Amino acid sequence: MAQVLSGTFAGKTTGTPISMVIFNADARSKDYSHIADKYRPSHADYTYDTKYGIRDYRGGGRSSARETAARVAAGAIAKMMLRETGISIQAYVSQVGALALERPYQELHLAEAENNPVRCPDQEMAAQMEAHIKEVRKDGDTIGGIVSCVAQGVPAGLGEPAFDKLHADLAKAILSINACKGFEYGSGFAGVAMRGSEHNDVFIQEDDEVRTRTNYSGGIQGGISNGMDIYFRAAFKPVATIVPEQESINQAGEEVIVTGKGRHDPCVVPRAVPIVEAMAALVLADHWLRNRNAKL
Amino acid sequence: MAQVLSGTFAGKTTGTPISMVIFNADARSKDYSHIADKYRPSHADYTYDTKYGIRDYRGGGRSSARETAARVAAGAIAKMMLRETGISIQAYVSQVGALALERPYQELHLAEAENNPVRCPDQEMAAQMEAHIKEVRKDGDTIGGIVSCVAQGVPAGLGEPAFDKLHADLAKAILSINACKGFEYGSGFAGVAMRGSEHNDVFIQEDDEVRTRTNYSGGIQGGISNGMDIYFRAAFKPVATIVPEQESINQAGEEVIVTGKGRHDPCVVPRAVPIVEAMAALVLADHWLRNRNAKL
Amino acid sequence: MAQVLSGTFAGKTTGTPISMVIFNADARSKDYSHIADKYRPSHADYTYDTKYGIRDYRGGGRSSARETAARVAAGAIAKMMLRETGISIQAYVSQVGALALERPYQELHLAEAENNPVRCPDQEMAAQMEAHIKEVRKDGDTIGGIVSCVAQGVPAGLGEPAFDKLHADLAKAILSINACKGFEYGSGFAGVAMRGSEHNDVFIQEDDEVRTRTNYSGGIQGGISNGMDIYFRAAFKPVATIVPEQESINQAGEEVIVTGKGRHDPCVVPRAVPIVEAMAALVLADHWLRNRNAKL
Amino acid sequence: MAQVLSGTFAGKTTGTPISMVIFNADARSKDYSHIADKYRPSHADYTYDTKYGIRDYRGGGRSSARETAARVAAGAIAKMMLRETGISIQAYVSQVGALALERPYQELHLAEAENNPVRCPDQEMAAQMEAHIKEVRKDGDTIGGIVSCVAQGVPAGLGEPAFDKLHADLAKAILSINACKGFEYGSGFAGVAMRGSEHNDVFIQEDDEVRTRTNYSGGIQGGISNGMDIYFRAAFKPVATIVPEQESINQAGEEVIVTGKGRHDPCVVPRAVPIVEAMAALVLADHWLRNRNAKL
Repeated sequence: MAQVLSGTFAGKTTGTPISMVIFNADARSKDYSHIADKYRPSHADYTYDTKYGIRDYRGGGRSSARETAARVAAGAIAKMMLRETGISIQAYVSQVGALALERPYQELHLAEAENNPVRCPDQEMAAQMEAHIKEVRKDGDTIGGIVSCVAQGVPAGLGEPAFDKLHADLAKAILSINACKGFEYGSGFAGVAMRGSEHNDVFIQEDDEVRTRTNYSGGIQGGISNGMDIYFRAAFKPVATIVPEQESINQAGEEVIVTGKGRHDPCVVPRAVPIVEAMAALVLADHWLRNRNAKL
Repeated sequence: MAQVLSGTFAGKTTGTPISMVIFNADARSKDYSHIADKYRPSHADYTYDTKYGIRDYRGGGRSSARETAARVAAGAIAKMMLRETGISIQAYVSQVGALALERPYQELHLAEAENNPVRCPDQEMAAQMEAHIKEVRKDGDTIGGIVSCVAQGVPAGLGEPAFDKLHADLAKAILSINACKGFEYGSGFAGVAMRGSEHNDVFIQEDDEVRTRTNYSGGIQGGISNGMDIYFRAAFKPVATIVPEQESINQAGEEVIVTGKGRHDPCVVPRAVPIVEAMAALVLADHWLRNRNAKL
Repeated sequence: MAQVLSGTFAGKTTGTPISMVIFNADARSKDYSHIADKYRPSHADYTYDTKYGIRDYRGGGRSSARETAARVAAGAIAKMMLRETGISIQAYVSQVGALALERPYQELHLAEAENNPVRCPDQEMAAQMEAHIKEVRKDGDTIGGIVSCVAQGVPAGLGEPAFDKLHADLAKAILSINACKGFEYGSGFAGVAMRGSEHNDVFIQEDDEVRTRTNYSGGIQGGISNGMDIYFRAAFKPVATIVPEQESINQAGEEVIVTGKGRHDPCVVPRAVPIVEAMAALVLADHWLRNRNAKL
Repeated sequence: MAQVLSGTFAGKTTGTPISMVIFNADARSKDYSHIADKYRPSHADYTYDTKYGIRDYRGGGRSSARETAARVAAGAIAKMMLRETGISIQAYVSQVGALALERPYQELHLAEAENNPVRCPDQEMAAQMEAHIKEVRKDGDTIGGIVSCVAQGVPAGLGEPAFDKLHADLAKAILSINACKGFEYGSGFAGVAMRGSEHNDVFIQEDDEVRTRTNYSGGIQGGISNGMDIYFRAAFKPVATIVPEQESINQAGEEVIVTGKGRHDPCVVPRAVPIVEAMAALVLADHWLRNRNAKL
């Protein structure tokens, strides 16, 4: 549970930084003693040891996705702020392994993502994904997936024109989440095969608002939001902790066998959904504040 | 041509910021007067106007990819610094439209990318890409593509563990390039369909060096380089400026027709190659310097 | 007492941020209810209310010097790091009210500052200062003073040439301490009346080391340390909380009387000594790390 | 003359960074060849050499006060912005050597500072200062001085509560100016001898505005502006370049004689006035923008 240590008074924020702490009440340090000097494949054990010359091996230490709990806590506050300005953010699982939800987000009821354990708003696909994850778990194995995210109600003008383009900051924030391997927004990788005449989003005036007829731009043009929906997708690799024995080496460079004790999660993608929302909220809140200074 | 205004003395850098300027000797401002108050589809005209209340419409102003010339100039210096430390970076075109080079980079002679105008190291595929671009040009249309990039000789230890993960900073830098819509590193989006047991990179000791048998991690684990090759891919959309007439609106919200005067480039992807290299070099140089402080 | 929440493992830092918390076990919030809507003279009540539209009036909230406890905790770690590099920092009280210690720091045993409650290394002057503070306390009044600080063993090369000059960063850090009104280093304000021929510090070679015969520069030239002692002085105003009644206004703009309940400290200067040391240590530690990147 | 390279269009700023360049049309590099390997006393020659391993000795390179021309150019734009918000800044020379203008700024017509070459608004004192500087020049010597500065019309609310206190940022900015040795604001160093009962600024309501009866706080309380005048003083040491011969050493550690060729300025303090104004304007403009985000 997150405790607020500072920054609020009488139910309101005061302008002082809001400090929150989540004490890990469920740590089982001894689960990890068997890997104290072993480099688990595709974990951060080796890189941390090399960079710092020391590593807290319990639970992966700082490289553990437990770290993202703090992001979700901070994101909850960013979301409260964004709600005041009319911005909402909704993420969901759109792929697990090879099972891909092909329907565009406009056809889905995104809120239904919270009605099943895999956080997929298509109940039929959700059932298939769930079954698939169970199968993977039986093998002691893991599987990756994709989280899609939509931000609605974002006013035109958020984002900076050169290095801090809105989608560039979103990409950095999302790729800073553990296990994330890719980011695309709007037409993304699929858009490269389109022609400009097909990909261009024509501007129209509708109910006194400027809109575009299509939205391959993903709500961002030249790094700056244009008032249309912002949507993006994030790829997550299969978790590195698996049950079967794996070959590896230890700090001394000797060959060792790594076994997957500790808690095992066959697919983190459903749990990445609130983290993706949180990071998107933090980026949008930052840019909302920065945009105040665009015009005197 | 880039002129050095400050930061060097007697052929060496002095520690003073290196200031360079490239005067645009080839501006044709009148090419753009016809779009002074029109919002070109999928350009930044509308978002700049909305954000700043004013826009320099000549050549797209700051939203023009001309801005990236400065990045290439800065990247050239970063590359010189990286070369001293044994790091090299090579990008190339791996896809134009639907024409995708499927061969992994290990099978290619990357330096051959400079031997043809599309900057694809596979000469046969290069010829196909070139023909395709010519065809697109005939229609006054544009097409997108993918740039792949490999950084070799990167020592283990570059990157920060939480928000400034090495791949997150690479993603931001690459997505800050005009027209970039997606970024993936290592196994990327394709990796989501893999199982952990297959995706995990087993550590081995080889010639007194720690290596991994496979490299789905793309040379980065937990946000920190592990000494293996870093490789990533960047998606570029088709350029928005096309020759055929397009519908749009102007600042007053009235319907107008936009025609594609000005210089027309059917596919920017070959020209994105040095920009991708430059941005990657800047990120790696920054992290190389930051990493000096990891251990006292 | 400061508790370490993160950043250490098995008695060593890990590279993870070191998080410490000091829970205020001695808060008496009700002491302050009488000033909830009053603007205490020369406190931050009015400015916080104006800036944020809300204020935590208990103990001054964030504007309380209690905040500096965190700085001392962080500074303790910076000092440990600096000690490894041979840098030591010693501050002391050199003036209380009009009682000024005129002897230069070279003639004092700075460590003796810890042997009396006013933290003045001259025991005779310390006694006078103590007596003076007692007198001020009897009146329910307060008095200001000056803290002097010396950093020794600082290698040449710390500091940046333009905006982040070493003394500029020291000034900002020291003036960010509550009640600080002025900063001078080396010859300071007195130096303005000197002539260049008198003020210039002549370089000499001594025991294979470059030194200067005098040190009016205060160990910093062009913003960069030159290897000589760094010394500076910081002025602290009399504390604003006094016992006698004072006129003021409240949030509604009505005239009110403010009375000095709550804990009363007639002279904070002795307690500013460890804070000055902490802030100086943090600045030097930062610049020590930054200087690693000056030469490849 | 400053040339604007970017950031404006049709007479207005566009939101793009404003790049200006001032080419040095008056460089006489050969004036400095005689000090190429000598360390001039109280210059930055030695510290630059030590930090970077190389030094551009012509005109002091980057450590020359020529660098401040760029600050004045940037400050001119900050002043234009501040003028729109009703903020004005006026600096003047208040001391040269031992000649101190004791009259408070409220009694002076600050604009008169521009009517004499020493930039002192008291014409009688200005004449004495001018005569004194001429005398110093005859000796080939230099002398220091003090610049006072007043910012009026600053709204309450600028400044941050902890590290980026408004006066702390002002101090850093001012102490980053060449030759500056000290900074004090409000009651400054003299205030330490005052009692709290005397120093406290009583709040009053006047013409529907909150004001203080005295202003020892210097317009800043708890790091945040309170709407009263902000005033501060900056100490400048005597310039290090003097005509008479001086002892020193060279890069090899050998004893050498330094002679004061090159241009010689006996007192830079009058020329520091626009630099102080520029740095103050930049700090206030930054905080004016930051303050927009204090309340949603």
